[in-house]
Amino acid sequence: MTDAERKAKEAESAALELSNVSDGDKSEALESIADEKEAREDELLEPNPRDVEEAEEMLERGEYTQALVDRLKLDSAKVSGIADMVRGVAEQDDPVGETLAARELDEGLTLYKVSVPIGVVGSVFESRPDALPQIASLCLKSGNAAILKGGSEAEESNRVLFEAIREATAESDIPNGWVQLVESREDVETLLGMDEHVDLLMPRGSTAFVRHVQDNTKIPVLGHTEGVCHVYVDDDADLDKAERVAFDAKVDYPAACNAVETLLVNEDVADDFLARIVERYDEAGVEVRGDERTRETVSVKEATDDDWTTEYGDLTVAVRVVDSLDAAVDHVNTYGSKHTDSVVTEDDIKARRFMESIDSASVFHNASTRFSDGFRYGLGAEVGISTGKTHARGPVGVEGLTTYKWYIEGDGHVAGDYRGENAREFTHRDFDGEW
Amino acid sequence: MTDAERKAKEAESAALELSNVSDGDKSEALESIADEKEAREDELLEPNPRDVEEAEEMLERGEYTQALVDRLKLDSAKVSGIADMVRGVAEQDDPVGETLAARELDEGLTLYKVSVPIGVVGSVFESRPDALPQIASLCLKSGNAAILKGGSEAEESNRVLFEAIREATAESDIPNGWVQLVESREDVETLLGMDEHVDLLMPRGSTAFVRHVQDNTKIPVLGHTEGVCHVYVDDDADLDKAERVAFDAKVDYPAACNAVETLLVNEDVADDFLARIVERYDEAGVEVRGDERTRETVSVKEATDDDWTTEYGDLTVAVRVVDSLDAAVDHVNTYGSKHTDSVVTEDDIKARRFMESIDSASVFHNASTRFSDGFRYGLGAEVGISTGKTHARGPVGVEGLTTYKWYIEGDGHVAGDYRGENAREFTHRDFDGEW
Repeated sequence: MTDAERKAKEAESAALELSNVSDGDKSEALESIADEKEAREDELLEPNPRDVEEAEEMLERGEYTQALVDRLKLDSAKVSGIADMVRGVAEQDDPVGETLAARELDEGLTLYKVSVPIGVVGSVFESRPDALPQIASLCLKSGNAAILKGGSEAEESNRVLFEAIREATAESDIPNGWVQLVESREDVETLLGMDEHVDLLMPRGSTAFVRHVQDNTKIPVLGHTEGVCHVYVDDDADLDKAERVAFDAKVDYPAACNAVETLLVNEDVADDFLARIVERYDEAGVEVRGDERTRETVSVKEATDDDWTTEYGDLTVAVRVVDSLDAAVDHVNTYGSKHTDSVVTEDDIKARRFMESIDSASVFHNASTRFSDGFRYGLGAEVGISTGKTHARGPVGVEGLTTYKWYIEGDGHVAGDYRGENAREFTHRDFDGEW
Repeated sequence: MTDAERKAKEAESAALELSNVSDGDKSEALESIADEKEAREDELLEPNPRDVEEAEEMLERGEYTQALVDRLKLDSAKVSGIADMVRGVAEQDDPVGETLAARELDEGLTLYKVSVPIGVVGSVFESRPDALPQIASLCLKSGNAAILKGGSEAEESNRVLFEAIREATAESDIPNGWVQLVESREDVETLLGMDEHVDLLMPRGSTAFVRHVQDNTKIPVLGHTEGVCHVYVDDDADLDKAERVAFDAKVDYPAACNAVETLLVNEDVADDFLARIVERYDEAGVEVRGDERTRETVSVKEATDDDWTTEYGDLTVAVRVVDSLDAAVDHVNTYGSKHTDSVVTEDDIKARRFMESIDSASVFHNASTRFSDGFRYGLGAEVGISTGKTHARGPVGVEGLTTYKWYIEGDGHVAGDYRGENAREFTHRDFDGEW
């Protein structure tokens, strides 16, 4: 048995126990984790300079970006932030044990649908030091065992962050083995084949990596590859709002998956709006690539068909002039990645048509695509954003880490009594009841 | 482009339109389907004798069972039954457009979570003539386009059933192309590769086939392979109830996936209970296979380890004597298939421990495993039973054919305002509101 196999089996066996641990015990364990993070601050900070130094060497070789180096850095304020985040997760409502439906099937025969943890969740994530404690905390709160694999650039930092979590819960009522760390690519490949033991995979990071996971496992995968998000400026838009939204959606944090990549502009406002937004973009250093009709209005680089499907992840934006709202909808449904799209218009009826016609996880009206985020949605925190259409869609918080079970309470009831002559009939009467 | 590719793309484009068709229009179309089934009764019945004749030849060659031949038969009463079923689906509550959450994020910035159809659903099902209209109706009610592939034994019957559905909706407000029939195995293989166009697959039928689908697609799969269900008779069981439940769970319909395959009996009641149930089973022609301790009490065939993981699908049952409720839980979690399991006991606390410790979609107390079914659960009808732990679990009705979208209504709100000095704060206040 390889190391990864042993860890997955330990997690599976811990998950069965963890599914019945009370919310009080889980929250207490989360408080211990937060305390431990603060108490061990020196220990947590110690290896980080080595990770950062290595990343800076990669940066010099052009294998890394400054933004990624910045994200990798850990300091005293970030450790406090992590402790606060873990306490915030502890304080959330218990997502497990909720009665989702209660139905009398017949006299003395009652059906309950009750939320439960999924089981074993595998997460492979990028090298941000707060990712590991965030994912581990959300899994624990929702009663799931977690198998974690961080970016290799943050290996040393992740190891101490992980040990602090493991040791903080070792003496609590949480079953040992609930959290596991794997470190090699081979371990990840092993996990992909363990569909008997791992219930859900949440890969984060590069498009190529997420696609690799999707292509090589039978385990359900929650995540997203591209984030090709759109802002459509309608002919009935308030152009001040349009400028605010289009600017923020690109410039606020261009590396984020919810940043806008393509701006669609109605032909009737193209002259006015493009002049304004291109000036703003220019000042912020945004490279604009326009289709033919855009370039009739403003002097920008040429966009090709490839631009419509590209997630730049930096200060670049593609612009297309469209005839109508329906043409914008067609563009988004054809080239988009079902992530987040926004319409700017003062016409509420057209806004609704846009929102209901776009097949994306999140669709906004007069708001920046950047709001597409678990914290901003009030989900407490997020384990990731899903562009799939089953299980959980958009930002995924603790609720997305739960499933449900069906319970029936009977008194010797058998199915044969509901058939043939003198068959009993089902009552199917919903009632307010708790499992 | 192959025929299957063209059909999948037609379905995808119909699905975008269908997602915004009103419940009234969908229900009206379903009524037309029901009327059409009745009006075309002669046409629907015409090809069936040929399908049945072919199946009877297969039966003679030992390639088919009598039960399957019986299921294949279509008569006037079954056509009426199909029309009633379709009307029943029409009358169900609209599963789409429901506001699942409404939350103020800030003044003038509001988040809605709203149920929507999944999109394109592919279903491959066994040769029961009511399967095709049932799956098509549930997809239409939930606003999904359907790609259907029936058992080749029912090919002629399925074709007329399909044409009646397609033509009944051709002149309604339902977009053409919403329902597609594919007939060859090659078409199924093509569909498995179309993860860009098909959102969910629901295979029904043999374990080998369902596993083949799971192994060869990136599309999310809802379904089950084995149905290895258990009944545990506790030392605190009422043995009359235990006898009723254990008998019904095996004999009521042995070919069903929710029939019991392994009976677990607490050692303290083994002598009493096994004598009774084996006598009942003998009378009904059930072959009993027991472990060593079972055979110390009753004279039955020997069970091997293979029996614990076998879905017999016929009048065979494995029996094991266990030391305790916890040993029964271990057995079920080790050998079961996460489908349906039942405990018989008069001790409610022990019952709850069993139910909450078993990692299966459905867990019952003093009730036959045979209740695990969409109709019996009051879901109207079912598209299948899922033993997976994500998206939908257990019997899947129209609700399992929906997902959700996130909408934000703003007024020019941007994310940059919620950061840095003078940052605005989110209010995150849930309210009773409808999208």
